[in-house]
Amino acid sequence: MSTAGKVIKCKAAVAWEPMKPLSIVEIEVAPPKAHEVRIKMSASGICRSDDHVLTGDLKVNFPIIIGHEGAGIVESSNFPLSILSITAPVGLMYDGTSRFTCEGKPLHNFAGTSTFSEYTVVHEDSVAKVDPSAPLERVCLFGCSFSTGYGAAINTAKVRPGSTCAVFGLGGVGLSAIMGCKAAGASRIIAVDINKEKFPKAKELGATECVDPLDYKKPINEVLFDMTDGEGVEYSFEVVGTPETLAAALASCHLNYGKCIAVGVPPSASEMTFSPALVFIGRSLKGSLFGGWKGKEPVPKLVSDFMEKKFVLDPLVSHTLPFEKINEGFELLRAGKSIRTVLKFQSP
Amino acid sequence: MSTAGKVIKCKAAVAWEPMKPLSIVEIEVAPPKAHEVRIKMSASGICRSDDHVLTGDLKVNFPIIIGHEGAGIVESSNFPLSILSITAPVGLMYDGTSRFTCEGKPLHNFAGTSTFSEYTVVHEDSVAKVDPSAPLERVCLFGCSFSTGYGAAINTAKVRPGSTCAVFGLGGVGLSAIMGCKAAGASRIIAVDINKEKFPKAKELGATECVDPLDYKKPINEVLFDMTDGEGVEYSFEVVGTPETLAAALASCHLNYGKCIAVGVPPSASEMTFSPALVFIGRSLKGSLFGGWKGKEPVPKLVSDFMEKKFVLDPLVSHTLPFEKINEGFELLRAGKSIRTVLKFQSP
Repeated sequence: MSTAGKVIKCKAAVAWEPMKPLSIVEIEVAPPKAHEVRIKMSASGICRSDDHVLTGDLKVNFPIIIGHEGAGIVESSNFPLSILSITAPVGLMYDGTSRFTCEGKPLHNFAGTSTFSEYTVVHEDSVAKVDPSAPLERVCLFGCSFSTGYGAAINTAKVRPGSTCAVFGLGGVGLSAIMGCKAAGASRIIAVDINKEKFPKAKELGATECVDPLDYKKPINEVLFDMTDGEGVEYSFEVVGTPETLAAALASCHLNYGKCIAVGVPPSASEMTFSPALVFIGRSLKGSLFGGWKGKEPVPKLVSDFMEKKFVLDPLVSHTLPFEKINEGFELLRAGKSIRTVLKFQSP
Repeated sequence: MSTAGKVIKCKAAVAWEPMKPLSIVEIEVAPPKAHEVRIKMSASGICRSDDHVLTGDLKVNFPIIIGHEGAGIVESSNFPLSILSITAPVGLMYDGTSRFTCEGKPLHNFAGTSTFSEYTVVHEDSVAKVDPSAPLERVCLFGCSFSTGYGAAINTAKVRPGSTCAVFGLGGVGLSAIMGCKAAGASRIIAVDINKEKFPKAKELGATECVDPLDYKKPINEVLFDMTDGEGVEYSFEVVGTPETLAAALASCHLNYGKCIAVGVPPSASEMTFSPALVFIGRSLKGSLFGGWKGKEPVPKLVSDFMEKKFVLDPLVSHTLPFEKINEGFELLRAGKSIRTVLKFQSP
């Protein structure tokens, strides 16, 4: 029986307030309005930006349904979609209202996507139709992590063949940045993380060296200068999201022409302090949102490239959990034990 | 009688310690060593970076002969040269020694140039041979201010025709940046300074609007957003050299694709504090040293362009003083009364 035009009751993981586990509760999802689409979720990745909401580092309005890296099927159809988080996190649809309620109380959305729900409603600009043969538990990665990291290297930095790169932070986005550096032809890709357990995967995906800053007494930027004969790296990617790592990544690149790409989402209240002398000689610091891809158009092509085996995605997914175990997924993230956890939603 | 190979005694303005006027004293200038050239100075501009040394904001080793924007004639020849300050301010020649002494005591050089002396010795990389018909009291500007500001717009920012630019700081470098924006075809050039006396000259050289931040209660970046229908400027140039103006310039440009170019020399000890969220969405912050020109090669062409009247330099020079009045020149700079003061050295 078609659900079109009706309110759907389903389960969602609601964040009622910061610093608390998500509650899986029954919610009501209103029908889509003009230029919106209601989607039955198939899979969603858990991203550190979602956790930044829960820790309070990323300011949003509560209660909220988070999750912004998903894949699903258009309600009452067979169209598979990748969901992109390309809107600002105002927490409401463009008409200023929400499609989600719980016992009549409106819930905010996150990044216009809210993928931690069995059903969600998004604007048409936030979805891309993809190859129907692509596995949705991998397609979800194009909504954030893979596209963001890979694109930061090939679009934002435009990594030069033969160059030396450093990637700070080896989560799903950082590993994708490594894949992007490799695809662009970098000669050296130095992976930086304080968790050595992430090094084998980084090497598998293209890192030529791995460095743990805690192994050194000197600052990591000086370590990287030592590793590059005093030159510094040509491109550095900050994929952690702290002001400290961003300053270190900036200080690690070549004084004259180094490019530091800010990929990690910084906490709302954070401030970065550095000497302007760091950039004065010619370095640049540039932000990269969603990998510099312009909206949804590139996503179907990325999915096709994946289906043609131009790159692999399986190594980026360390855990697959049923949606109901979402809090377990966040615990894995916080413990540094996961690369990407993908939540799978039950088939109807 | 040729002076080649001999120590030359001449007058120089020596900075014995910070926060004191320069002393014009007799010094000894040793002959040039391999790949060096000894130059009889004709003209030298006074730059705020020189003043940063005197205020202690730019750390150097004292005693020192500062000045880094000069033009002169190769000793015992007729070759006119423009002197470029493109070396790091270590204060010594590449062999680790100085060519300057005063009563036997070594004096440091500045930026490898030290133009506040009747004679100086520089490395061949720091000089460019120019059109002998070019007036040396204008040629000196190619050594720093004009090249730096003009190049920041056309080389570093690569200002797009039809774009909107903002230039913070209307000294000689800032005005040159305005000229570069105009030459690149910018549609709007917003000149920003807290000294309204600089506005007529800015308009003469290409500014389409002038703004004094002190006229507003809101921060200047918000004023610039208001002036651009909430978009922000496409390119902002910081030509003051303070962390506060750099943060304001960064916050003034377009959230997604704005480019902020750091041109002003920041005080050594200064720190810049801003939210990484400022760059996260896609803005970039890039330093520009010597206008992004690669060494000395472009200078003769710039001088030729000047001689062909492709741009004017006279409006950049507000005062011309005899070398002996150098402290008066610094007073004009500090009082905000000069654009560029050019010192003229006596003919032999």
